[in-house]
Amino acid sequence: MHSGRKQPHAGRWGERALGELAVLKQIRARAVHAPRGGLRLGIGDDCALLRVGAGEELAVTTDLSISGRHFRLEWQTPESIGHRTLARGLSDLAAMGARPVAAFLSVGLPKDLLQDQKKNWLERFLDGFFALADAFQTPLAGGDLAESPIVVADIVLAGAVRRGKALLRSGARPGDLLYVTGTLGGAAAGLARLAQLAASARPARSRPLRIPGHLESLLAPHLYPQPRVAQGLWLARRALSTAAIDLSDGLSTDLAHQCEESHVAAEVDASALPIHSAATLEQALHGGEDYELLFTAPPAARVPRSIAGVPVTRIGRMVRPRKGRPQVALVTVNRTRPLARQGWEHFS
Amino acid sequence: MHSGRKQPHAGRWGERALGELAVLKQIRARAVHAPRGGLRLGIGDDCALLRVGAGEELAVTTDLSISGRHFRLEWQTPESIGHRTLARGLSDLAAMGARPVAAFLSVGLPKDLLQDQKKNWLERFLDGFFALADAFQTPLAGGDLAESPIVVADIVLAGAVRRGKALLRSGARPGDLLYVTGTLGGAAAGLARLAQLAASARPARSRPLRIPGHLESLLAPHLYPQPRVAQGLWLARRALSTAAIDLSDGLSTDLAHQCEESHVAAEVDASALPIHSAATLEQALHGGEDYELLFTAPPAARVPRSIAGVPVTRIGRMVRPRKGRPQVALVTVNRTRPLARQGWEHFS
Repeated sequence: MHSGRKQPHAGRWGERALGELAVLKQIRARAVHAPRGGLRLGIGDDCALLRVGAGEELAVTTDLSISGRHFRLEWQTPESIGHRTLARGLSDLAAMGARPVAAFLSVGLPKDLLQDQKKNWLERFLDGFFALADAFQTPLAGGDLAESPIVVADIVLAGAVRRGKALLRSGARPGDLLYVTGTLGGAAAGLARLAQLAASARPARSRPLRIPGHLESLLAPHLYPQPRVAQGLWLARRALSTAAIDLSDGLSTDLAHQCEESHVAAEVDASALPIHSAATLEQALHGGEDYELLFTAPPAARVPRSIAGVPVTRIGRMVRPRKGRPQVALVTVNRTRPLARQGWEHFS
Repeated sequence: MHSGRKQPHAGRWGERALGELAVLKQIRARAVHAPRGGLRLGIGDDCALLRVGAGEELAVTTDLSISGRHFRLEWQTPESIGHRTLARGLSDLAAMGARPVAAFLSVGLPKDLLQDQKKNWLERFLDGFFALADAFQTPLAGGDLAESPIVVADIVLAGAVRRGKALLRSGARPGDLLYVTGTLGGAAAGLARLAQLAASARPARSRPLRIPGHLESLLAPHLYPQPRVAQGLWLARRALSTAAIDLSDGLSTDLAHQCEESHVAAEVDASALPIHSAATLEQALHGGEDYELLFTAPPAARVPRSIAGVPVTRIGRMVRPRKGRPQVALVTVNRTRPLARQGWEHFS
């Protein structure tokens, strides 16, 4: 962790009990110390040092989360926010077929979130973060910490992938079949339920909602999404996928990205969609944050019905782009209609 | 660039003129496209792909900047903030002796900063960013963009360094001599002058100060600090330095970090300090943000008086740590006194 600089203001000079160094020491104590996998040098110097094997390259991704935009302090627990922050980055590695090597975490937050009860907000955030990091053997290699009027978290993930074997968005060809892992719409359904709960509870700001026990499994796809790292690694190793992307912004938006990068169009079969049991068709099409993998493969490829325990469903096919035909179309029994991007976009 | 997700709110659906995709397209148009150096795949997929040579490893650093803390919209121009954001990251690479391979930039900002006059705030920020990136041959490989009530910028730099040859903080030994590049206190002196200007001008919020022409060179060390990448590369190649750190938090604080990591103490010779012509001794000792390199070398090492055009000055020596003796001491003609850390620390 690298300490930051700021403009002079009262209280600038000197260290106190809750100084940055004390917080950094806590984080450092929870991070990995001996070289592990590709991480040769972690927290404590100007940079971390990473190695990949001969014949490998490094996949790097970064995702910025901002309170009130990507999460709400009064809706999600700190543990869930920590989990989701890391899950976003791991999901990008999964979509490239990369093995996690190291994570970097930059957090800005108000001072009062360090001054809570027995366990402060940042410690609980880190509990959620490290639980997922341990599950995916991803050491925390560095980051930054700063005081901020709002909570911001930027996650960087570095992963290793065999040279030339990364799953790109750009390789889909007309005729390829379209597949998705897991189910769709569960995260959006959970978020909608959370919004209902919040509306009825009217909780105090920065005091998270109490989640009734019977709702935990319904909210899990939203609060604790599972990045499909093992599935991405499997696809890259077998080299049977022509293109892949993770579903962070919603099927309608992410499929459009894939079509653009591959210069193809797509037809989605509405009846084939693996809709989450609590979700609507609209949530499955546009909800986002499911962090499932969307990938294409030639018709001859032998795509299994599940990969590493997660179901795989064929949901459509890639077609040649034509003038007057939508880039992404939704095919139902009666008709084919354009599927406009309705996933999330900032500044819109 | 990876698009973000957020909580539902009014105006979520659909794309408009200033949508995220439009901004991302602008940024993408300014980034490098063909593979360049170690960057094999840049903006446009789930991850960027980086390669380093056989026998090299990757140095990675991340630095978070927040408006009102690390910069002020009403003090610094957007170009300066863009420059400083990248300079912080490049300086960390310099302190490891690493060659820049790729940068990743995550920016959160209010919508109104995209809606300005001819050139909006973000475009001017990127002007400053890309001018420095070009000078240091550092392609922008990815990042993230989000709407935020305050401006936040997280910079990630990846660089290549020969395996085992990185300049660490931890290698200094008692007896080693202590060196610094360039001059000290110039950034703090510039910042103090800027604060004076601001106090007299009382500018409107988010409308930067006009800098009178005759003050430009005085303010340059603060507004446009120069990362010592060439000097770090030279030191790593010659392998004559035992430890190195960049001066981001101030000599008193960064030297203490180096002493801790190396398990040594240090004595600084006050009369030897290369104090910037506009700066005081206090600014040189504690000011920070000079982004010079502080490094140690054995007495027998032939350290030149300048490296790649930047002067190098011997300012002290490393000594064995002893109980009752300060970790860092300032030696003047009359006496030796402890040099307490008075550089910047967050949450203090």
